[in-house]
Amino acid sequence: MKNQLVHEKIKQAVEILNEKNIDAWLIFVRESATMRDPTLELVVGTNCTWQSAFIINKDGDTTAILGSLDVPNMKTVGTYKNVIGFVQSVKEPLLEYLKTHDPKKIALNYSLHANLADGLTHGMFLALSEYLKGTPYIDRFVSSEEIIAALRGRKSSSEIELMKVCVRETERIFDEVTQFLQPGKSEKDVADFIKSKVTERGFELAWDEDHCPAVFTGPDTAGAHSGPTDRLIERGHILNIDFGVKINGFCSDMQRTWYIAKENETTVPTEVQHGFDVLCESINQAAIIVKPGMQGCEIDDAARNFITQNGYEEYMHGLGHQVGRDAHDGGSGFFPRWERYGNLPFIPIEKDQVYTIEPRLMVEGHGIVTMEEEIVVTETGCDYLSNPQKSLWII
Amino acid sequence: MKNQLVHEKIKQAVEILNEKNIDAWLIFVRESATMRDPTLELVVGTNCTWQSAFIINKDGDTTAILGSLDVPNMKTVGTYKNVIGFVQSVKEPLLEYLKTHDPKKIALNYSLHANLADGLTHGMFLALSEYLKGTPYIDRFVSSEEIIAALRGRKSSSEIELMKVCVRETERIFDEVTQFLQPGKSEKDVADFIKSKVTERGFELAWDEDHCPAVFTGPDTAGAHSGPTDRLIERGHILNIDFGVKINGFCSDMQRTWYIAKENETTVPTEVQHGFDVLCESINQAAIIVKPGMQGCEIDDAARNFITQNGYEEYMHGLGHQVGRDAHDGGSGFFPRWERYGNLPFIPIEKDQVYTIEPRLMVEGHGIVTMEEEIVVTETGCDYLSNPQKSLWII
Repeated sequence: MKNQLVHEKIKQAVEILNEKNIDAWLIFVRESATMRDPTLELVVGTNCTWQSAFIINKDGDTTAILGSLDVPNMKTVGTYKNVIGFVQSVKEPLLEYLKTHDPKKIALNYSLHANLADGLTHGMFLALSEYLKGTPYIDRFVSSEEIIAALRGRKSSSEIELMKVCVRETERIFDEVTQFLQPGKSEKDVADFIKSKVTERGFELAWDEDHCPAVFTGPDTAGAHSGPTDRLIERGHILNIDFGVKINGFCSDMQRTWYIAKENETTVPTEVQHGFDVLCESINQAAIIVKPGMQGCEIDDAARNFITQNGYEEYMHGLGHQVGRDAHDGGSGFFPRWERYGNLPFIPIEKDQVYTIEPRLMVEGHGIVTMEEEIVVTETGCDYLSNPQKSLWII
Repeated sequence: MKNQLVHEKIKQAVEILNEKNIDAWLIFVRESATMRDPTLELVVGTNCTWQSAFIINKDGDTTAILGSLDVPNMKTVGTYKNVIGFVQSVKEPLLEYLKTHDPKKIALNYSLHANLADGLTHGMFLALSEYLKGTPYIDRFVSSEEIIAALRGRKSSSEIELMKVCVRETERIFDEVTQFLQPGKSEKDVADFIKSKVTERGFELAWDEDHCPAVFTGPDTAGAHSGPTDRLIERGHILNIDFGVKINGFCSDMQRTWYIAKENETTVPTEVQHGFDVLCESINQAAIIVKPGMQGCEIDDAARNFITQNGYEEYMHGLGHQVGRDAHDGGSGFFPRWERYGNLPFIPIEKDQVYTIEPRLMVEGHGIVTMEEEIVVTETGCDYLSNPQKSLWII
């Protein structure tokens, strides 16, 4: 199954090379189990020890050049047609390949903006430059970010099915959490409960266990990207959870919001309900305009402006990112035009990409309201992969 | 405990900065849970999302500049004195730091030769170059490989204790394997048995589970860096296993060799015994000359020459590498003078470094003999961390 997906992705990569008129794609790595170029699991399917070159040619030919001791393993994995071993240096077989195939435009595994396309370390770039000094190939490199963005972004129907499984299982755990939540339990208690479900079912967490799940309760909560604390759930708190699972190599990334009612409280306080409604509608404002060809910043605008026009403070992060093999999958995203996002807000959205939509607002005295939905881009718009939260969940 | 080790290592880093007369050490990373700069677990203790700078100054000051949403987590982790958040770009606070401290020599997290010191991606290097364009700082960078080599190499006594635990537990599993081995079992059966012990005891594997453990039986075995196959153990086979565990963040990496006696065989065949004896003595030849100040290639020479002088073919890899938080820890190693090892064979050996010694030879018709021992360099020589295998283990 694993290697079958790699074969599918290599085939897709060849199509993308032809579409973008790039002759060859060179992935240059070493000790990849330590510095893990995330592209390897996509189009290689194993790791390497010494300086190694994985080359996909637009004619469909695939060549792996690795240290001789890695050759038997690479042949067993079987994802590359030509497997060439070296003892002393990758330089000669790599030069030999370039001389034979003479690619005019070579995509290389680095990227200024897209971290998932930036697997080439600077030291390896220096090594490559040294090997190719005085050859014409050194000036033929371009970033492979566009290839990787297309390859990671465009989900095959079997990939979408795998991602739906992740979403369903995440929603199932959110339902179980609803039964578990009560005043007096701590953020850590809630996180431990969620982790126990993940372990019990043989899943992995979608990101770093320090803040997966993240649990935030009440008005003094730390906000995004912080681990659960000993803070106790109290009546009157808004509580939310940011959480995802990894199953069969694919991730989910979702958020849900609960309100912990006070005793004798028969309706949700107006300001809490209003915050929830505005957030809900901001997600809808974004989702209804998504379609192929738009820029992510336009989608970000829709939710961000709706929230600030309703008098809430602007959230200090992007509206949404892609999801796939990583919880934060790249490159394009529903991002604002901020320098830290580089060119990512401006890359046109494509069919079959999966994005999160995750605005956020603060209700003074109660806590943070934030939901995170997952959508897949269709020919004419988008479909939800998640069942969007449409009402506040009351404890 | 985790953060205490980070504090210890930051203190050690400050000493090394002073020793090497470097003013500041800049670690520049993004989305570090995906592209994991291995230095972060050493001197940071957590991951970051956006472009982030971790700076250790030789006066002992430590500064983390991260996306604002990562700030609460960094403060909770508590390993850096100054924690500065940004919303739009790391550029301004980074420039501000450089202007204020004006470091004349800045170590940066890239390295041509040492993969564990090469956490800066090429894209991040380009970003940094852009941010610092027109400033004097751009010309003040040097590789931090020397700092990292010293920091990872020089084990504190508490680190040595943690590594001894790994070695003991590996040896314990090797003893259990001796009871398990018998003709008719496959390489995969043996690997599964070992993995079950690792899981049962709550350890991790020291490297990629595809070839940890690696199990090789008989004359037709694939050799190093290949995963276990369905090949069955037969009488007359030499069998060896390459295996290590990770416990409390530290690794072991060891190999042992067994002989599967034929029925009615009362002594080991001469050629098998001779191969074992030569290999054993080649390890000794290397170990007895190890001391601080020597070059790794000199140690490699000792074992390699002993094996070829005894008429065996040269093994196509280095004699040994460092072990620590990674099974292949860097930079210096007992490596031959081959281009693929860059400058690593020539870096002087230091006290308190831990190395493997792992020569290899083939006994025609039986299989591969290879042991891998671990030693720690002392003031005047070296001590074994492992109990060296001195006799062939007969099944």
